[in-house]
Amino acid sequence: MRQVFNQYPCIPPEEQEVVRKLYYKYGRLQRVKKNKILKCGGECNKLFYLKKGLCMYMVNYDQDKPRALAIIPPGRAMGDLTCLSGEIVNVTTVVKRDSEVLIIPPDILTKCMKQDFDVSQAIIKTTIAKQECFLEGMIANFTLDYEDRLRTLFKSLIISFQCPIEDFTKVPLALNNTELGDIINSTRVTVSRILTKWQREGLARKEEKQLYLSQKLFNDLYDWQDYFK
Amino acid sequence: MRQVFNQYPCIPPEEQEVVRKLYYKYGRLQRVKKNKILKCGGECNKLFYLKKGLCMYMVNYDQDKPRALAIIPPGRAMGDLTCLSGEIVNVTTVVKRDSEVLIIPPDILTKCMKQDFDVSQAIIKTTIAKQECFLEGMIANFTLDYEDRLRTLFKSLIISFQCPIEDFTKVPLALNNTELGDIINSTRVTVSRILTKWQREGLARKEEKQLYLSQKLFNDLYDWQDYFK
Repeated sequence: MRQVFNQYPCIPPEEQEVVRKLYYKYGRLQRVKKNKILKCGGECNKLFYLKKGLCMYMVNYDQDKPRALAIIPPGRAMGDLTCLSGEIVNVTTVVKRDSEVLIIPPDILTKCMKQDFDVSQAIIKTTIAKQECFLEGMIANFTLDYEDRLRTLFKSLIISFQCPIEDFTKVPLALNNTELGDIINSTRVTVSRILTKWQREGLARKEEKQLYLSQKLFNDLYDWQDYFK
Repeated sequence: MRQVFNQYPCIPPEEQEVVRKLYYKYGRLQRVKKNKILKCGGECNKLFYLKKGLCMYMVNYDQDKPRALAIIPPGRAMGDLTCLSGEIVNVTTVVKRDSEVLIIPPDILTKCMKQDFDVSQAIIKTTIAKQECFLEGMIANFTLDYEDRLRTLFKSLIISFQCPIEDFTKVPLALNNTELGDIINSTRVTVSRILTKWQREGLARKEEKQLYLSQKLFNDLYDWQDYFK
């Protein structure tokens, strides 16, 4: 699972209550179709909050090897880090499912931090956590084999969605094999091969298009914080 | 140089003036010998500011493959991110040269952020920049060959120390080959082989133990932000 940081790989934590309230207060709702780009690499001062749907932060988007830096489920802001830093990054924010997005005036963050220290504190903690989840995702992709990356990603998803791990746990977010490949720095074909192997070994099963994974896949995943338990 | 983020790899930016003043005001000076550990993985609430000397953030420290997550030259705080997040990370802060360190009460950060919005804003910008430098360092180490990693590291050092790039630029921080290997995820032997090759090709020279590097080494280093220039 985790090798260096406190956050689990690839899925940033939800915004804290005090910040989410701001986004709801100042945001303007917009429905956005899948495959739309919310923010290109090099853009700044664009702030969104995902209410429903699914987005991803992509690098190398529109190039030969697109890679997902992070999965953004509902409850997270997007573009907040560049609004806060005032700098640009080479990350494309892509809508992966038909979504409901709040479009937020980008200067709200700084204004509200100024007025309310609780906002500042929430934002700094979430900022650190978000970047840790990118870092930990990279570490997973660069140190684990494909099968372990996929196990790690699924466990990270299950933990992020606060699902209890049962004998067979439903994966709380349906991602296709291309998306899974983009996240673990691999391909649709490799992901498909691993999932088929798991099904053959009785470690995974599909029911009504839902993927269920055996607890056995997760039991022996190394996590550095186990040492402190 | 940079592939995704705004910061250059491996060397975090200096603290902003308003934050440095705090550290000087509340810090207690201590001399620390080389190879001492300031903060172990799993520790929290330890805050330092490096006045003189050199430190490094290490992962896998005391294990078979120690790796440097970042080089910390003077002018930077250490432990600040875990003080702000209240969480732990598996990073060891090691003193690499005899150093002068300010030891700072860890609650100062939050207290001063509460009193002064300029402190909050400086801290959030520096926090994002620091983590970007870790991210960009990882990307370099996982996508470039050893020679390009070393070129990238040296250019990042030269830019961090605000040295103008000349026909031959003195590397502004003397690191030995083992340290360079720890940073570029390689070995002392590989670093030595590359530096010898550069000297043979007239791209590097040593004068009184100082390393000078030719501009030719840096001219064609890809940087995603060149696109925006």
